[in-house]
Amino acid sequence: MAHRLEKDTMGTVEVPEGAYYGAQTQRAVNNFPISGLKPHQALVRSTVRIKKCAAIANMTTHRLAKDVGEAIVKAADEALAGQFADQFVVDPFQAGAGTSHNMNVNEVLANRANEILGGTIGEYTRVNANDHVNMAQSTNDVFPTAMRLAALELAHELDNELRDLADALARKGIEFDHILKSGRTHLQDAVPIRLGQEFSAWSIAIANNRSGIERTFAGLRELGIGGTAVGTGLNAEQAFIDLIVEALARETGQELTRGESLVERMQNMDPFVALSSSVKGAAVNLIKLANDLRLLSSGPRTGLGEINLPAMQPGSSIMPGKVNPVLPEVTNMVCFQIMGCDLTVALAAQAGQLELNVMMPVIAFNLLFAMEILKNCLRQLTSLCITGITANEERCRNFLDQSVGLATVLAPSIGYAAAAEVAKESAKSGKSIREVILERGILTEEELEEVLAPYPLTTPGVHGKE
Amino acid sequence: MAHRLEKDTMGTVEVPEGAYYGAQTQRAVNNFPISGLKPHQALVRSTVRIKKCAAIANMTTHRLAKDVGEAIVKAADEALAGQFADQFVVDPFQAGAGTSHNMNVNEVLANRANEILGGTIGEYTRVNANDHVNMAQSTNDVFPTAMRLAALELAHELDNELRDLADALARKGIEFDHILKSGRTHLQDAVPIRLGQEFSAWSIAIANNRSGIERTFAGLRELGIGGTAVGTGLNAEQAFIDLIVEALARETGQELTRGESLVERMQNMDPFVALSSSVKGAAVNLIKLANDLRLLSSGPRTGLGEINLPAMQPGSSIMPGKVNPVLPEVTNMVCFQIMGCDLTVALAAQAGQLELNVMMPVIAFNLLFAMEILKNCLRQLTSLCITGITANEERCRNFLDQSVGLATVLAPSIGYAAAAEVAKESAKSGKSIREVILERGILTEEELEEVLAPYPLTTPGVHGKE
Amino acid sequence: MAHRLEKDTMGTVEVPEGAYYGAQTQRAVNNFPISGLKPHQALVRSTVRIKKCAAIANMTTHRLAKDVGEAIVKAADEALAGQFADQFVVDPFQAGAGTSHNMNVNEVLANRANEILGGTIGEYTRVNANDHVNMAQSTNDVFPTAMRLAALELAHELDNELRDLADALARKGIEFDHILKSGRTHLQDAVPIRLGQEFSAWSIAIANNRSGIERTFAGLRELGIGGTAVGTGLNAEQAFIDLIVEALARETGQELTRGESLVERMQNMDPFVALSSSVKGAAVNLIKLANDLRLLSSGPRTGLGEINLPAMQPGSSIMPGKVNPVLPEVTNMVCFQIMGCDLTVALAAQAGQLELNVMMPVIAFNLLFAMEILKNCLRQLTSLCITGITANEERCRNFLDQSVGLATVLAPSIGYAAAAEVAKESAKSGKSIREVILERGILTEEELEEVLAPYPLTTPGVHGKE
Amino acid sequence: MAHRLEKDTMGTVEVPEGAYYGAQTQRAVNNFPISGLKPHQALVRSTVRIKKCAAIANMTTHRLAKDVGEAIVKAADEALAGQFADQFVVDPFQAGAGTSHNMNVNEVLANRANEILGGTIGEYTRVNANDHVNMAQSTNDVFPTAMRLAALELAHELDNELRDLADALARKGIEFDHILKSGRTHLQDAVPIRLGQEFSAWSIAIANNRSGIERTFAGLRELGIGGTAVGTGLNAEQAFIDLIVEALARETGQELTRGESLVERMQNMDPFVALSSSVKGAAVNLIKLANDLRLLSSGPRTGLGEINLPAMQPGSSIMPGKVNPVLPEVTNMVCFQIMGCDLTVALAAQAGQLELNVMMPVIAFNLLFAMEILKNCLRQLTSLCITGITANEERCRNFLDQSVGLATVLAPSIGYAAAAEVAKESAKSGKSIREVILERGILTEEELEEVLAPYPLTTPGVHGKE
Repeated sequence: MAHRLEKDTMGTVEVPEGAYYGAQTQRAVNNFPISGLKPHQALVRSTVRIKKCAAIANMTTHRLAKDVGEAIVKAADEALAGQFADQFVVDPFQAGAGTSHNMNVNEVLANRANEILGGTIGEYTRVNANDHVNMAQSTNDVFPTAMRLAALELAHELDNELRDLADALARKGIEFDHILKSGRTHLQDAVPIRLGQEFSAWSIAIANNRSGIERTFAGLRELGIGGTAVGTGLNAEQAFIDLIVEALARETGQELTRGESLVERMQNMDPFVALSSSVKGAAVNLIKLANDLRLLSSGPRTGLGEINLPAMQPGSSIMPGKVNPVLPEVTNMVCFQIMGCDLTVALAAQAGQLELNVMMPVIAFNLLFAMEILKNCLRQLTSLCITGITANEERCRNFLDQSVGLATVLAPSIGYAAAAEVAKESAKSGKSIREVILERGILTEEELEEVLAPYPLTTPGVHGKE
Repeated sequence: MAHRLEKDTMGTVEVPEGAYYGAQTQRAVNNFPISGLKPHQALVRSTVRIKKCAAIANMTTHRLAKDVGEAIVKAADEALAGQFADQFVVDPFQAGAGTSHNMNVNEVLANRANEILGGTIGEYTRVNANDHVNMAQSTNDVFPTAMRLAALELAHELDNELRDLADALARKGIEFDHILKSGRTHLQDAVPIRLGQEFSAWSIAIANNRSGIERTFAGLRELGIGGTAVGTGLNAEQAFIDLIVEALARETGQELTRGESLVERMQNMDPFVALSSSVKGAAVNLIKLANDLRLLSSGPRTGLGEINLPAMQPGSSIMPGKVNPVLPEVTNMVCFQIMGCDLTVALAAQAGQLELNVMMPVIAFNLLFAMEILKNCLRQLTSLCITGITANEERCRNFLDQSVGLATVLAPSIGYAAAAEVAKESAKSGKSIREVILERGILTEEELEEVLAPYPLTTPGVHGKE
Repeated sequence: MAHRLEKDTMGTVEVPEGAYYGAQTQRAVNNFPISGLKPHQALVRSTVRIKKCAAIANMTTHRLAKDVGEAIVKAADEALAGQFADQFVVDPFQAGAGTSHNMNVNEVLANRANEILGGTIGEYTRVNANDHVNMAQSTNDVFPTAMRLAALELAHELDNELRDLADALARKGIEFDHILKSGRTHLQDAVPIRLGQEFSAWSIAIANNRSGIERTFAGLRELGIGGTAVGTGLNAEQAFIDLIVEALARETGQELTRGESLVERMQNMDPFVALSSSVKGAAVNLIKLANDLRLLSSGPRTGLGEINLPAMQPGSSIMPGKVNPVLPEVTNMVCFQIMGCDLTVALAAQAGQLELNVMMPVIAFNLLFAMEILKNCLRQLTSLCITGITANEERCRNFLDQSVGLATVLAPSIGYAAAAEVAKESAKSGKSIREVILERGILTEEELEEVLAPYPLTTPGVHGKE
Repeated sequence: MAHRLEKDTMGTVEVPEGAYYGAQTQRAVNNFPISGLKPHQALVRSTVRIKKCAAIANMTTHRLAKDVGEAIVKAADEALAGQFADQFVVDPFQAGAGTSHNMNVNEVLANRANEILGGTIGEYTRVNANDHVNMAQSTNDVFPTAMRLAALELAHELDNELRDLADALARKGIEFDHILKSGRTHLQDAVPIRLGQEFSAWSIAIANNRSGIERTFAGLRELGIGGTAVGTGLNAEQAFIDLIVEALARETGQELTRGESLVERMQNMDPFVALSSSVKGAAVNLIKLANDLRLLSSGPRTGLGEINLPAMQPGSSIMPGKVNPVLPEVTNMVCFQIMGCDLTVALAAQAGQLELNVMMPVIAFNLLFAMEILKNCLRQLTSLCITGITANEERCRNFLDQSVGLATVLAPSIGYAAAAEVAKESAKSGKSIREVILERGILTEEELEEVLAPYPLTTPGVHGKE
C-alpha cells in the first residue's frame, strides 16, 4: 500500500497515503493488533464533540486563532455527520488511558482542518494535532469525559428499549388479567395467581431497573474536563474550563456540570462502575424474565405450556417441527455477557493508580458493548416475542384446579396442621384438594364454591374463614 | 444431651431440652450442617420486628386474640433486647427462601409467648408458631422484608464509617494542602500536584460512594410484606397489609412503604443487587485508595516514601524492624471479599423462578457479611491509619523538582514538539528540566522562577506563556 | 479481664492472663476485629506441622538445640491433637501475607515449649517465637506452604464427597435404566431418553470434576518452604530446605517436592487459582444437577413430576403440606457462594506485587471456606436426597408417548421437511405423533410398533429407515 | 438489494441473491442483529471439518450417495481454504445451542455442493442442508464438538505465545542474573535479590500456566459427536459414530476420542469452564507480571526506575516527552477482559438444563475471544517490550545498599529483637544498616564485608552467623 512518511516526537512512521490520521495513530495500529475491533462510534462522536467545544472555548479565550478554531469546528461537524468514520482505527485494546484514541481524533481533525485551510494532509503546519486540536486538554481529562458522554448517549437508547419492554409487558398484564392459574414457588404447587399479575410484575421489575439506571446519571454528568494531565488544570485557563462545560452541555443537550474536584474526576471510575452495575441489575431481572418465559412456554407436550411464544425459526437441524424460545435464549446469553462485562469494568476500575486510571479503554469498551448488545437484544425481544405471546387459558385453569397449594385457603379456619393433612391426602391419593375437602366433609359443596372461587383467591383477604 | 420430642406435620423430632426453638428448626439444624455459621443478628432482629408488628396488626384487625398477641409482642421485645440470641441456630446455607429461618423465629417466639401465658415450652397450645406468630404471613413475604430491614440497618452503619473516613481524608487534605509534589500518571512523572489535593480527591470519591449507596435505599424501603405466599395477599386482609407497613415504619424509624406490586416484590432481588453493587462501587474506590496509600508509603528506602503510615505491628517474622501497611492491606482483602460477595448476590438474584427467588438466604448472607466486614474494616482504617498519616515534605519536593513532567509547562509557549526535546534531553542526561531550560536559553533564570513557581502549577492556568 | 504485659519490638501489649499467644497476636486481635471469624483449623494444623518439621530440620542441622527443638515438636504434637484450639484467634481478615497468623502459631508453640522446658508463659527466654519456632522461616514461605497443605487436606475430603455423590448417581442410573421418557432440549419436546441415562450422565460429569480437581494437585505439592523472606533462602541453609520438605512429606503423607524456583513459589498464586477454579467447575456442574433435580421433581401437580425427592421438612410457613427440594436448593446456594469465593481468590491472586502476594489470607479464607461448605453440602445432598429419589415411571412414559420430538424418527426415511409437517400437525391438533402417522398412512400400525418401539430409540441407530 | 425467495419448514424468506446461505441463516440474521460481530473463523472451520468428516463417514456406511458426499467434501475443502468466508454471517449472540450457526454451515455447504453437482444455489434438490449435510448429526452434538475443536486450535496458538514469552523472560533472567537489588515485600524494603531471579520467576510462572492450560486438553478431546439430539445417538448408526471420530482425528491431527457418555458430553460445559479458567489463571499471573513491570520501570525520576521498557509511542497528548509502559498496560486490560469472559463462560455453563446447554454460543464467543486477544497481546508484549528491556544496574545497587531489610542478615547471630533495634535506628536516622552496624560495633568492617557481600545474600544460607 502507498504510504507517506510522518514524523512525531519519536521519529518517522509510514502512514497510509490519504489517511486522515497520522503518526501516533499509526504507531497505535502497529502496536495493538489485538482484537481487530474498532472504537464504538458513540465514543468517537463524543471525543469529536469535546474537540469541537474545546476549539469554541479556546477561540472565546482568544488562545486559538479564529481561522484555525473554525476549521477545527468544521472538521468536527463533518465527522459528526459521519465522514471519516473509517479513520478511527485504533483497537479498543490499546495504550493505557486512551492516549492513542485521543490522538487518533486529534490527528484526523488536524489533518482535515489543515485541508480546510488549504493545506495538505500530513503537514500539520496550520493546524497541529497536539498544539491546536488538543489545546488545553489532556487525554486524561478528554477520555473520561468522552466516556461519560458516550455512556449517557447509549444509556438513553437503552432506556428507550427498557421502556418499550416494560410497556409491552404491562399491556400483556392487562390482556391476561383474567387468566387464573396456579402460582409456583420452589417450582412446587402454590396458591392461585393470575397470568396478568405475572406479566405486570415483570413490567414493574423492568421499570425499577430503569430507575436504577437513571439514578447513575448524576455522577456521569459531572465532568472532569479542564483538569488536563492530573486534574489541576495546568495549561487550561479557568475561563476555558467553564466555557467548555457550557459548550458541551449545549452540544449534547445534557445537563452537564463541572465536578467538585477535577483531580477526583480523573482517578475514580465509580460513575462507570455504577452505570455498569445498574445495567447488570437489569440483566439480572431480565435473566429471570427470560427463564420464566422459557419455563411457562415449555412443551408443547412435555412442559408447562401455559403460554406460547411466537415461532421465529426452525428450532433444530435434526428434530423436524421443533420450535425454540430463541429470543428469551439470546436474552439470557446477552445478559450473561453483560455480567462478564460488568466484572471487567470493576476490575479495571479498581486498578487506578494515583492521578489516573490507565485502564479506561477497557472500561469504555465493555460498558458501551454491554449497552449496545442489550438495547439491540431488547428491541428484538419486545417486538418479536413479548408482543406476540398468547396464553393457554384452559391449561392454566387445569393446573389451578389440581394444585395442592389450594389447601392454604383452609389454614385460617382449620389451622395449619389440619390443612396439611388435607394437602398430604391430596398429594398421596391423586385427588384434588376440592375432592378431599368434600370427602372429609370440611365444607359443603356450596361453601366450597364460595371459598374456592378462584378470582378472589388472587387478591388480599382471608377466604376460608367461618 | 437431653431432648424432648416434638411433632410437626411430618412426624416427631428430638429437640434439645429447654430449647426455645422447635421441630422445624431442629429439622433444619439436622439438614444443613454446612458452614457452622449463625444468622446475622440484624437479620434475626428484623425478622423479630416483623413478627411483633404482625401481632400488633393482627390484634388491630381482631384476628388475633389480645392475650396471645400481647404475649407475642412481649416475647419479641425480649428477643430484641438480646434474649434468646443463642436460639437462632439455622445455618445461613439452608432451605430455599429462608423457610427454616422464618420458622426458627416463629418457634422461639411461640414457645416464649406460650411460656408468658403460663404454658410450657414445646406445647404450642396457646400460641402456635404457624397459626399465631406467622399469622397472615408467609416466609415468602417475611424473609425478603427482613432482608430489606437488615440491609438498611447495616447500610446506615456502613454509611457512618464511610462518612468518618471521608472526613478524616478531608482533614488530611487541608493539613497537606501546602505540600507540593510531582503527580504521576501511568506511574510515570507527570505535572505538579499538592499532596492535599490527592487526599481531598480520595475524600470526595468516598463521598460519592456514600451517595451511590444512599440512592439504593428507595428500592429497599418498598416492602412486599402482606403479599404472603405469592404476592397476592391470600390469607392477609388488606387492612393487615396497611397496618403492618405502618407498624414497621414506626418500629424501625425508616420511611417504609408498600411496594407497587406485592407480586413483584417477592420475585425480584434487584434492590439487593443494587445495594450490593453500590457497596462494591465503594470497594472499588477503596482498593484504589489502599493501593495508593501503599504506593506512596512504600519504602522506607526502596520506595516512594512520600507519606508515612502509623506503625501498627511488627511486619515480619524474619525481617527485624519491618513495618507494613497492614490497614490498607486488610482493606484490600476486605474489598476483594466484597467483590466476591457481590458476584454471589447477582448469581443468586438471577436464579429466581416464577413467583419466588428461593436463593434469598445466600443473598442475605453475602450482603450482610459484606457490609459487616467493610464497616469494621473502615473503622480500623480511619482510626488506626488515616488519622495518623504524616508527610515527607522534602521527599515530595525533591520528586517535584526532578520530574520530567515539568516540560509540560513549556508546551503552550514553545509547542509540544519542542518541549518534548527538552524532556528527552532531561531524561537522557539525568539533568532536571530546569537545568535543560537554562542551558538551552529557553528562559532566563528570572523567567524560570516565575514560570516554574510550583504552587501556581497546581492550579488552572497557562504558565509558560509569554 | 486479667492481663499480663508483654513486650515486642514495638513496645508493650496487654495479653490476657493465661493466653498461650503473645504480644504480636494480641496486636493483630486489636487491629483486626473485622469478621469475628477464626482461622480454619486445617490452616492452623498445617502451620503447626510446618513448625514441627522446621524444628526437626533445624535440630538435624544442629542449628537448634535439641531440648528446645524437642519441646517445640512436643508442643506442636499437642496442638495437632487439638489442644490450644481456642488459642488461634486472629481474624482471617488480617495483616497482609498472614504475618499475624504465623506469629500466632509461633507464639503459642513458643509459650507451650517454654512451659514444657519448665518456664512460664510470656517469658520466651528458653524458646523464642521468632528466633526458635520461626527459625529459618519467614511468613512469606510458611504461609503459602500452610495454604498448600490445608488446601490439599480439604481437597481430599471434598473429593471423597464428590466420589460418594457420583457413586450414588451411578447406582440410580442403573436403577432407572429401564424408565423411558422424553428428552427435553431448550425445555421443549425432544427425542426419547431413559431416566437412567440422565442419572448416569450426571454421575460422569461429577467424575470429570473430580479429575479436574485432582489435576491441580501437582502445582500445590511443589512447595516454596525454605525460600524465607523473598524466595532466595536467606537465613535458611540448603540442608534445611531439603530436610523440611522431606519432613513435611512424611508428616502429611503427601508427595511433596521443592518448587523449581522458591522465588516463584512466593509470588504467584496460580496453584490456588487453579484449585479454586476446578472447585468452581464442580459447582457449575452441580448447579445444573440441582436445577435439573428441581425441574424433574417439580409439582406435584403443576410441574413435570418425573421424579420424587425425599421430603425433608415442611416447605412453607403458610402453605400446609408443601414440600420443597431443600437439598438441591441449598446446593445451588452453596455453589453460588463458591463462584463468589472463586472470584475473590482470583482478585487477590492478581494483586501480588514483586516478591510477594500479601493478599494470601483472603485467598486462604475463601478457598478453604468454599471447600468446607461444598463437602458438607454434598454429604447432605447425597445421603438425604440422591439416595432416596424415586421415579414416576408412568408419568415419564406418558410424556414420551405425547412428545412431538418423536417426529424425528421419521426424518431419515421421509426427509426433514415432510417429518416437520407431521410434527406441526401434531402440535396444532393435539394428536400424538403416533396418531398423525397412522392417519396419514405413513406407516402401518405394525411398522409403527417396530419403528417407535421406545427402548431402541434411546440407543444409536436409524430406526425409521425402510 | 436483489433477493431470491427461499422456503423452509416455516414459510418463505427473502435471501440475498447469490448468497450461499439460505432461509434459516437469513431468519437468524433477521432475528439477531445484536452485536454486529461475525463468528470466529476457527469455529467456522471446525464446523466445516465436522461436516466434511460426517460426509466421509456417511459415505462409508453407504447412507450417503457417493456423488453427494464427495460434493460436500469438496465444498468443505473449499471453505477450509478460505472461500465463502463472508458467508458465515450469524451474530455470535443467536439462537440457543447454535442452531443458526450450524444451519449456516449446512446451507453454505449444501448450496455449494449442489452447485458442484450442476445445480443452482437455492435449490437443495441434489443436496439438502438438513438431510445430507447435517445427516446423522444434530446441532446439539455438532456445536459442542466444533467448540472443542476450535478451542483446541486457539489454545495451541495461545500456548505458542506463552512459550515465547516464557522463553524471553528466561533469557532476560540469564542476562540480568548478576544484577543485585533489594527485594520488596508489602512494597517495603526486604532482603537482597537478583534482577535475574525476578525475571526467571516470572518465566517459571508462565510455564506453570502453560501446564495448567494443557491439563485441560484431555476433557476437550473427548467428543460427543454422534450423540445427535440428546446424546442417545438416535438417527446415527454406531458405525458412523466411530467413523466420524476417527475422521476428525485425522483431519485435525488431534488425539480425539469418543466421550464415555454422549449424553453427558452434550449437557455439561465443564471442559470449556476448565479451559477458560486456566486461561484466566494465566491472566492472573500476567496481570502481576504487567504490574511488576510497570512498578519497576516507574519514573524516570519519581518512580523506582530499576528497569527500562522500550519506548513505543509518545505517551501523552499534553505532556511532551512522556513515555508510558503501553504494552504492560494493554496486557492488564486484555487480562481484565479475560476475567470477565471467564465469568460469562461460567454463568452460561451453569445454565444448562436437562439434555442440553442452550447457552453454548456465548461460551464459544467468550472462550475464543479471550484466547484470540490474549495471544495477540502476548505476541506484542514479548516482541515489543520484554525482549528490549534494559536494567539500571546502579540504581538497583543503590537501593540494595540502602535497604533496611539488610538487618535481617543479623538476626541469626544477634537475635530478632536486637536486629530490630538496628533496623529501627537505620529507619529513624536515615543511616544505612551498614553504617549502624559499624557505629554500634556489631561487626568490624572486615566482618561486615564478608557478612554483607551481596551475592551470597541472594542464595540459601545463614550469613551473619559467627
